[in-house]
Amino acid sequence: MMDLGAKPDWIAVDWGTTHLRVWLMSAAGKVLERRESDKGMGGLARDAFEPTLHALLQDKLTDTPLPVLVCGMAGSRQGWAEAPYVAVPCAPPGVADATHLSVPAMEVFILPGVKQSSPADVMRGEETQIAGFLSGEPDYDGVLCLPGTHNKWVHISAGEIVSFRTFMTGELFDLISTRSVLRHSVNTDGWDQSAFDAALADTMSRPADLAAKLFSLRAEGLLENLSAEAARTRLSALLIGAELAAAKPYWLGQQVVILGEDTVARAYETALAAQGAAVRVVEAENATLAGLVAAYNSLKKALA
Amino acid sequence: MMDLGAKPDWIAVDWGTTHLRVWLMSAAGKVLERRESDKGMGGLARDAFEPTLHALLQDKLTDTPLPVLVCGMAGSRQGWAEAPYVAVPCAPPGVADATHLSVPAMEVFILPGVKQSSPADVMRGEETQIAGFLSGEPDYDGVLCLPGTHNKWVHISAGEIVSFRTFMTGELFDLISTRSVLRHSVNTDGWDQSAFDAALADTMSRPADLAAKLFSLRAEGLLENLSAEAARTRLSALLIGAELAAAKPYWLGQQVVILGEDTVARAYETALAAQGAAVRVVEAENATLAGLVAAYNSLKKALA
Repeated sequence: MMDLGAKPDWIAVDWGTTHLRVWLMSAAGKVLERRESDKGMGGLARDAFEPTLHALLQDKLTDTPLPVLVCGMAGSRQGWAEAPYVAVPCAPPGVADATHLSVPAMEVFILPGVKQSSPADVMRGEETQIAGFLSGEPDYDGVLCLPGTHNKWVHISAGEIVSFRTFMTGELFDLISTRSVLRHSVNTDGWDQSAFDAALADTMSRPADLAAKLFSLRAEGLLENLSAEAARTRLSALLIGAELAAAKPYWLGQQVVILGEDTVARAYETALAAQGAAVRVVEAENATLAGLVAAYNSLKKALA
Repeated sequence: MMDLGAKPDWIAVDWGTTHLRVWLMSAAGKVLERRESDKGMGGLARDAFEPTLHALLQDKLTDTPLPVLVCGMAGSRQGWAEAPYVAVPCAPPGVADATHLSVPAMEVFILPGVKQSSPADVMRGEETQIAGFLSGEPDYDGVLCLPGTHNKWVHISAGEIVSFRTFMTGELFDLISTRSVLRHSVNTDGWDQSAFDAALADTMSRPADLAAKLFSLRAEGLLENLSAEAARTRLSALLIGAELAAAKPYWLGQQVVILGEDTVARAYETALAAQGAAVRVVEAENATLAGLVAAYNSLKKALA
């Protein structure tokens, strides 16, 4: 139950490339109100971040500065203020590593991302989801899978991010399904589970010939009237299958938690279960907020 | 040397999705003039083909109809008039299989494409390039590689197309390099041959983890200042390497001819040579025209 009239004690912010989500929070970690905007980091010049947040929080800001905890792309080099990456192995970085800005009515803490040198990889935003997940399951030892535009596989042990690997699978799915010659062939929201299962098994056994299997979707549409539903499902299975084949060292013999939402998380769950992996799904937006709450709690402790 | 004043005996037309190329020809197969337009099949309604060609040839058309031989997407179901696919194994289809239209001032023959049922695949336009190549080398036994938006690998024996496989490699390169998160990382026309060689060898040995290696280009740009030139070259090597790994049954132990043009054909040539394949490059536009000439010659013979 939200309490729209109450004055927040602090503000939680998830500022991604294409979205801005803000939660007005009580000191005890209760959500008083949730607000959002399409003013993602991607469309903002450096000097536009502060006014954007001011405008969104206008009615709640006073002379007493509110703590504002920010995760996501706002901390990138092209963002509000750079919060340099912390290197693995590391616990998900918190306020101690944050970039601090004192601006009118706000004390802003921008949380850093995490980097890895070999193979070269970066995350920004996902580390806060991981912190949120670990705040609920501090002893978790296993693998987190975070589906999204850039899917992450993360090996967690002793409260630390040990290693991770990013796959551009989500972005490839978007590009191919909306911009390639296949866009008409997959023009549906439907899902054909048996087509998914068959294409996944096929791809797991021969993961390299993706570019040829993609064109087969087009050819089967022309020659055999392959349905849009089957084509879209097979496109998903081809891309997820290639990812699972390459990510096998991450999930084989491990317990896997998928931090995700909706159809995509379910597709990964089905696909991993078909490989015999022990897998469950945890909702992702809750994890981001829980990570920001954990960061606020450590800030409170530091200031006490 | 073109002869702009002469009256053509027939017209050769290559009508693709995005281009229209027309050659005014003598009966002996000499090019009198070349014309082109951006009125590709993709932007034309069915009733716009005839007026488009009329407008382009206006000054050459008379009451005596000219033979017009057309290859490419103009023969697809959404084109000028469907020229149904011929199934492999088959010689590249000629005028005997063409769709014939009698329209004012023109006798039009639209050449069919070729289809394969397992794995499902289609070509339309490439079969005429193949016919052109075979008109010069009728005894060729081996593999043709036709790089393009949708790359084809074609097994040729005894003058026939035995089997073929299409890879969406060219289209993936275009989408990733212009529309994905990598577009800024690869924003150059440069080429780094040693980066190509290294990335190709790496991909050939582990072809499945494409989506992860793609994101590494982004991460190395952020963490290690990877140059745009090296990133673009590696993107090319990743995609070509995955294709070569999957197409190995086509090129291993075979002689390979690349029917192509420019940088892309050279990249395939280098990559195949690095695998020890016996490979040479033949220019592609000449092959298309030679294929149309071969079709005209068999038309002449049939009418004689």
